[in-house]
Amino acid sequence: MEKRKMILDCDTGHDDAIALMVASKHPQIDLLGVTVVAGNSTLPKTLRNTLNVVQHLGLEVPVYAGCDRPLVRDQDVADDIHGESGLDGPVFPELHIQAQEKHAVLYLIETLLASEGDITLVPVGPLTNIAMAMRLEPKIVPLIKEIVLMGGAVGLGNATPAAEFNIYADPEAAHIVFTSGVPVTMMGLDLTNTALADMKVIERMEALGNKAGKLFGDIMRFTFHSQAVNGLSAGPVHDVTAVTYLVAPELYQTKKMYVQIDTNMQGPCYGRTVCDMNNRYHKEPNVNVGLAIDLEPFWDLVADTLQRHI
Amino acid sequence: MEKRKMILDCDTGHDDAIALMVASKHPQIDLLGVTVVAGNSTLPKTLRNTLNVVQHLGLEVPVYAGCDRPLVRDQDVADDIHGESGLDGPVFPELHIQAQEKHAVLYLIETLLASEGDITLVPVGPLTNIAMAMRLEPKIVPLIKEIVLMGGAVGLGNATPAAEFNIYADPEAAHIVFTSGVPVTMMGLDLTNTALADMKVIERMEALGNKAGKLFGDIMRFTFHSQAVNGLSAGPVHDVTAVTYLVAPELYQTKKMYVQIDTNMQGPCYGRTVCDMNNRYHKEPNVNVGLAIDLEPFWDLVADTLQRHI
Amino acid sequence: MEKRKMILDCDTGHDDAIALMVASKHPQIDLLGVTVVAGNSTLPKTLRNTLNVVQHLGLEVPVYAGCDRPLVRDQDVADDIHGESGLDGPVFPELHIQAQEKHAVLYLIETLLASEGDITLVPVGPLTNIAMAMRLEPKIVPLIKEIVLMGGAVGLGNATPAAEFNIYADPEAAHIVFTSGVPVTMMGLDLTNTALADMKVIERMEALGNKAGKLFGDIMRFTFHSQAVNGLSAGPVHDVTAVTYLVAPELYQTKKMYVQIDTNMQGPCYGRTVCDMNNRYHKEPNVNVGLAIDLEPFWDLVADTLQRHI
Amino acid sequence: MEKRKMILDCDTGHDDAIALMVASKHPQIDLLGVTVVAGNSTLPKTLRNTLNVVQHLGLEVPVYAGCDRPLVRDQDVADDIHGESGLDGPVFPELHIQAQEKHAVLYLIETLLASEGDITLVPVGPLTNIAMAMRLEPKIVPLIKEIVLMGGAVGLGNATPAAEFNIYADPEAAHIVFTSGVPVTMMGLDLTNTALADMKVIERMEALGNKAGKLFGDIMRFTFHSQAVNGLSAGPVHDVTAVTYLVAPELYQTKKMYVQIDTNMQGPCYGRTVCDMNNRYHKEPNVNVGLAIDLEPFWDLVADTLQRHI
Repeated sequence: MEKRKMILDCDTGHDDAIALMVASKHPQIDLLGVTVVAGNSTLPKTLRNTLNVVQHLGLEVPVYAGCDRPLVRDQDVADDIHGESGLDGPVFPELHIQAQEKHAVLYLIETLLASEGDITLVPVGPLTNIAMAMRLEPKIVPLIKEIVLMGGAVGLGNATPAAEFNIYADPEAAHIVFTSGVPVTMMGLDLTNTALADMKVIERMEALGNKAGKLFGDIMRFTFHSQAVNGLSAGPVHDVTAVTYLVAPELYQTKKMYVQIDTNMQGPCYGRTVCDMNNRYHKEPNVNVGLAIDLEPFWDLVADTLQRHI
Repeated sequence: MEKRKMILDCDTGHDDAIALMVASKHPQIDLLGVTVVAGNSTLPKTLRNTLNVVQHLGLEVPVYAGCDRPLVRDQDVADDIHGESGLDGPVFPELHIQAQEKHAVLYLIETLLASEGDITLVPVGPLTNIAMAMRLEPKIVPLIKEIVLMGGAVGLGNATPAAEFNIYADPEAAHIVFTSGVPVTMMGLDLTNTALADMKVIERMEALGNKAGKLFGDIMRFTFHSQAVNGLSAGPVHDVTAVTYLVAPELYQTKKMYVQIDTNMQGPCYGRTVCDMNNRYHKEPNVNVGLAIDLEPFWDLVADTLQRHI
Repeated sequence: MEKRKMILDCDTGHDDAIALMVASKHPQIDLLGVTVVAGNSTLPKTLRNTLNVVQHLGLEVPVYAGCDRPLVRDQDVADDIHGESGLDGPVFPELHIQAQEKHAVLYLIETLLASEGDITLVPVGPLTNIAMAMRLEPKIVPLIKEIVLMGGAVGLGNATPAAEFNIYADPEAAHIVFTSGVPVTMMGLDLTNTALADMKVIERMEALGNKAGKLFGDIMRFTFHSQAVNGLSAGPVHDVTAVTYLVAPELYQTKKMYVQIDTNMQGPCYGRTVCDMNNRYHKEPNVNVGLAIDLEPFWDLVADTLQRHI
Repeated sequence: MEKRKMILDCDTGHDDAIALMVASKHPQIDLLGVTVVAGNSTLPKTLRNTLNVVQHLGLEVPVYAGCDRPLVRDQDVADDIHGESGLDGPVFPELHIQAQEKHAVLYLIETLLASEGDITLVPVGPLTNIAMAMRLEPKIVPLIKEIVLMGGAVGLGNATPAAEFNIYADPEAAHIVFTSGVPVTMMGLDLTNTALADMKVIERMEALGNKAGKLFGDIMRFTFHSQAVNGLSAGPVHDVTAVTYLVAPELYQTKKMYVQIDTNMQGPCYGRTVCDMNNRYHKEPNVNVGLAIDLEPFWDLVADTLQRHI
């Protein structure tokens, strides 16, 4: 089976780090590059966190800094969840590597234009970089094989009662992506909030005995309590579910439906992914929505992949 | 135990009819009057349906016609669910009784002003009548003991993916009621969609052998299939749950929270009850939201009450 | 020529008082009643101010208290313009008369239902009373001969840069009235801000030598400076222009056009009367918009009418 | 006096062509480049029109193609005003020159980053290119000396009753620019609709006897009637007024005020520049709004500059 070419677009962030660990070592994934966006924290922090993970695990993947704020709305970060650094928990040694010179948006455009339409984008932060690339160079749109994103919710949000953080952080960018015509698969809170790294999971990964397992533990022990505000008993590894979907879609229950972004900036549902589950609108489905995940093989897949790290 | 004085405000409607059957005969309920509003169908139809049930079961309760359209928005009725007559299914004999002369809104105002603050309003349709009464005579607000309504949803809507029909049909009225300061208990779809009159329930009520049981069957056999559009396997008796809450609150799981109505008329979430389940906003709770109901004793209660009819 | 039957709906208020003086004594106007609404000030104040003027000038007209707050939005009053009492300036003796028992909305409904379709409504405050009456009893709508209102603007607003106060104070009520199908003539700021009671006008009215002229002076001397916030060099007699239009339409330049109310509650144009002056939308005109007034004969008309008072 | 360095951002377009003629030859203007955006017409057309003018007049200025659609909203072009080609009227010879390879947004970023903060941007179309550049590289924001734009209105719009075309065509981009902190001067319809190329003006320019004068005539004879839909008796040269302001600000009456863009996508005022003329909000002014222009010296300036062309 051919490897899935993908670019990870992230705002590292705890679960982003885990997503990066899985994307960079899974044998069936060809991780071309990592683009970084503001989201969970400010861009300098999400970039630093990404580079820290890359250096710490000795990854070869190039990292590109992207947009430092949302398209239209005022910026809102999630430091209640991710702490002061945006990745509180692990302690990293001094940083020696740095991001590429090229802007993430230009990297996306050039890479996609040079591709044969076989690259999947996996955005696990706000969709600013992707939307900017689409608007700056519309020719890339038909060249994107698929977008598998972490974001949104059929049910309750976490940034607000109505909206999930990644979409809420840039609803206009989400609107651009969701109406672009590119096939979108969305891993929302309904699914990702079930992928909880409880103590059993944390100890299993730590027991791998390598740097990656240790890092998983350092990261997810921090989030063990931080999501109690959303009624969760442990930290969810949201973003990983978007990565593993590329190589193990059989673990997922999904449903195609029409999804609309609420862009009423001053309304209580700003940033909500309005999911027409029961097809009330009879509109063409534009999103494949993840509804459930088979957790046991999912954690096996994560463990197997982490095992391949140093 | 003292009887609970209540006024039923309805847009009969299938489940409204069942609610009326229960409210009119439960030994601990003192049903003072029935006010009618446009909603499931137009006012002439919801009024006729209400009178048909009252006459057919020989009830003594006075019926008042209220508002024939929502406060601000354009009217939208639910004939996909309730059929041409607004209560398709049962066949009623010729109608000989009629509504009172007084407008429902004036009846509400006069009755509440004359009360000792011991009347509970049970609106199971759009909140137009209640909101109009509150605006026309604000002095009634502190005199309303409680409002127990059927409407809204924490999760998915049924009129739109975001909004439940009763709230969607008059979101501005809902905004008035939800911000009035009156204690509100809301039976939303999360709860009411579980109260399904499946064939076992239908046959049980029919086996009561009286007119009421027969009417229950005629009504709920019609809705058995009509709610498939909302992914339901049988017809829910939404409205009854608001009535039975008055006399058997112990059957309900509820949670107090801050609930806001989305009043963005052109947005995709118009009429959504935005429920702050996880208290993200740290605002004072204004609604007691019904989340689950203990179905077995609920159906017992319904059957016991229907048994008391002719 | 037959007298024009009218009901004045006001939130007295400075210019409301002048409007009442003109409406109550013009020989071709039959002022059936005065209904009062919250607006420039709270209802207790606008009612008291109305009664003060009625008593002071010995008028016979019945006064009805109406709605004390807007239909949907939170209340906002204009005490920056009208002062603490809502009619600062004149000093009135102790009040001995009182309002009728009946609610203004019910008075409107009963009077219109009993009429032959020959009554014109002249609302010069927020449109809450009129809208409530239309919703409570839709049968009155075709019985209203015409609505001539003070409110709105083609150009700049005064409550906000986008909205004139009367419309801003209850945009949802305005939406109901403007979409009711009743012929509406709107005297907006474009016209009314030119009807300035400068010192020459004030002295002319005072020189009439009667109570009414004196009251005009006491009132408009107060507003002489208060409208500097809107860039005006003297106080405009906004509301009077709606009254005089009934008997001297030839003094007005008007244009029929499509006018829509902006009801986006959180937007910067909430309450704006969006006037399609150049017919960009090709929609059926729903409002006759006053654009200019011939000031010399207008002031003559005001003076002649005030002369008839005690 | 030092020359004013400027970049013209346009969607040629009739008045854009005139703006280009003036910007390219005025002795005190150093026109560094021309960036093109979709607006009056689609990007292929606005680009072709721009290149046609450049080639026809033998200009040396580099032309860069920019964004082909607005940031967030669906595209809307103005072919009712500008005709099928987007610049109907003049007939151009075959086109031999072409746009630079670089994207307009990247050109803006690179040029500004390399500058000493002495470049003024003169956007006379939708603000998409400028907003995209600001979001892609926020470091340019403090390096922009000033933005002098054509767009918006204190009074009536032309795309809708509320909104002027350039702002309406991309309100979110306008929001980004107006809240960027860069000093903005706005030439809105209140001013530009007075700069009418009537027959006297057209004949004066044609009498210059050169290609530029002839082109002015060919262009503005077409617009002579096309703006009757906005109630104008001749074609306005909107965009030129933004260019000439750079070298003759003394011809303009302007006022600094707080201006907010209405971004309520589904509302009737979407794209309106809400201008707080009377400082009701007491907010820091963010825009210098052009209110009037001294027409005689303005036309002299235009004629003198056109005279310098071939």
